[in-house]
Amino acid sequence: MENLYTEEGFDANQISVVLVNTSHPGNIGAAARGMKNMGLKRLVLVNPKDFPSGAAIARSAAAVDVIENAVVVETLEEAINDCALVIGASARSRKIPWPMLDPNGCAEKVLSEHHENKVALVFGREDSGLNNEELQLCHYHVQIPSNPECPSLNLATAVMVISYEIAKLRTKTKNITVPKEDDFWDQPKSTIDDLERFYEHLERVLIAVRFHDPENPRQLMQRMRRLFGRIRVDEMEMNVLRGILSNVEWHIDRKNQ
Amino acid sequence: MENLYTEEGFDANQISVVLVNTSHPGNIGAAARGMKNMGLKRLVLVNPKDFPSGAAIARSAAAVDVIENAVVVETLEEAINDCALVIGASARSRKIPWPMLDPNGCAEKVLSEHHENKVALVFGREDSGLNNEELQLCHYHVQIPSNPECPSLNLATAVMVISYEIAKLRTKTKNITVPKEDDFWDQPKSTIDDLERFYEHLERVLIAVRFHDPENPRQLMQRMRRLFGRIRVDEMEMNVLRGILSNVEWHIDRKNQ
Repeated sequence: MENLYTEEGFDANQISVVLVNTSHPGNIGAAARGMKNMGLKRLVLVNPKDFPSGAAIARSAAAVDVIENAVVVETLEEAINDCALVIGASARSRKIPWPMLDPNGCAEKVLSEHHENKVALVFGREDSGLNNEELQLCHYHVQIPSNPECPSLNLATAVMVISYEIAKLRTKTKNITVPKEDDFWDQPKSTIDDLERFYEHLERVLIAVRFHDPENPRQLMQRMRRLFGRIRVDEMEMNVLRGILSNVEWHIDRKNQ
Repeated sequence: MENLYTEEGFDANQISVVLVNTSHPGNIGAAARGMKNMGLKRLVLVNPKDFPSGAAIARSAAAVDVIENAVVVETLEEAINDCALVIGASARSRKIPWPMLDPNGCAEKVLSEHHENKVALVFGREDSGLNNEELQLCHYHVQIPSNPECPSLNLATAVMVISYEIAKLRTKTKNITVPKEDDFWDQPKSTIDDLERFYEHLERVLIAVRFHDPENPRQLMQRMRRLFGRIRVDEMEMNVLRGILSNVEWHIDRKNQ
């Protein structure tokens, strides 16, 4: 059943599982196995502590191909720069709340958008998850509800739950098309790379107009990331926003000359 | 939250996870962790190959109590003899078809019967699952749908999926509270009135920086409305946006003086 990865309505090539800074290679193998159990295949490893590794291969069982094809990169930005939907696993609520999905809502979002947008599902370190900066690169966070006495899931188990919900919804909704917001959209979404360049530009302008002091940032840029991240800016809108920033910059510069 | 195990409508004491002939103690620990993550607590080990074991404790993380309270017995019959609902995990269809549940159907059956009947959820060996004799001791089989190219789940992962479905259904039937986006939000949303004043302000600034020509509007303000409308700006964000506009305006005005 080779077509499982690309059967009608589903394309596993569009969805990456990204593991950040994994300590134990066994967890990478177990995550790969769970992914393949559920019909996912693309694994990206951000700066793993110990990889390649025999332990990863051993624990992957029949998912050796997922391990062999895993892409290793240095930074999370590299892992997701061509993705336009990035969902990060988060165990706890943060200082700045973020758009939050449950596993089923995550599956709905992934399946409804994955033909148009490359999707990254991002999982953090075994002991401490994703840090705040990494979480702020995500459009959404997904939280697996769990027992407050024992809230932290094993990494591979968390990957399994998210992959399982996607597989379950695929099976349920196969051949059904509910019109989604995006069917009505006229423009492709911006990529993470476009967004990052926008944030850099925005920060320069906010400094120039003395709204932002990098010495005393007061979470301003995080708030801007949360705001423009959840808006899912499309390409034409991105051009408009960049154009506005350029015009503001030009006026400020002229004044300072 | 001690009552998680015995909260209204749920009694974790009535539900056992039974692992038959487990080879790797690490899997026992990981299964215990997944159980406790999802609010289960009773673990029964049928003739485990290597237990007690430091590896089981290590992998159990915050579920050491589940390992410490695990009951070890010699045979599956002993493990389930006081149970009136026994559901066995089965990876493949057998010669003799058996009443079969999917994970959600399993959760429905467990929750609806567990007050009257002690329930056992039975999982087999890592390499070969439950044998036919063991499967025939079960009232139902539960199968986790999986990729035919890689159908066999890791033991702890399988325990997690079944436990997760029970936890999910518990939460749903109790009317609580799968986290929704808005539950995590720290600020009230802006009103339409706030938004309108923001659009007026934005338009003035866009004119001032010569990005917008009201004589030739090119749908710019409609695009801005669509963009900031779907963002659901909260009150603090609105203050930030208005602040940015004011600073830009101040710098432009100063130049023009």
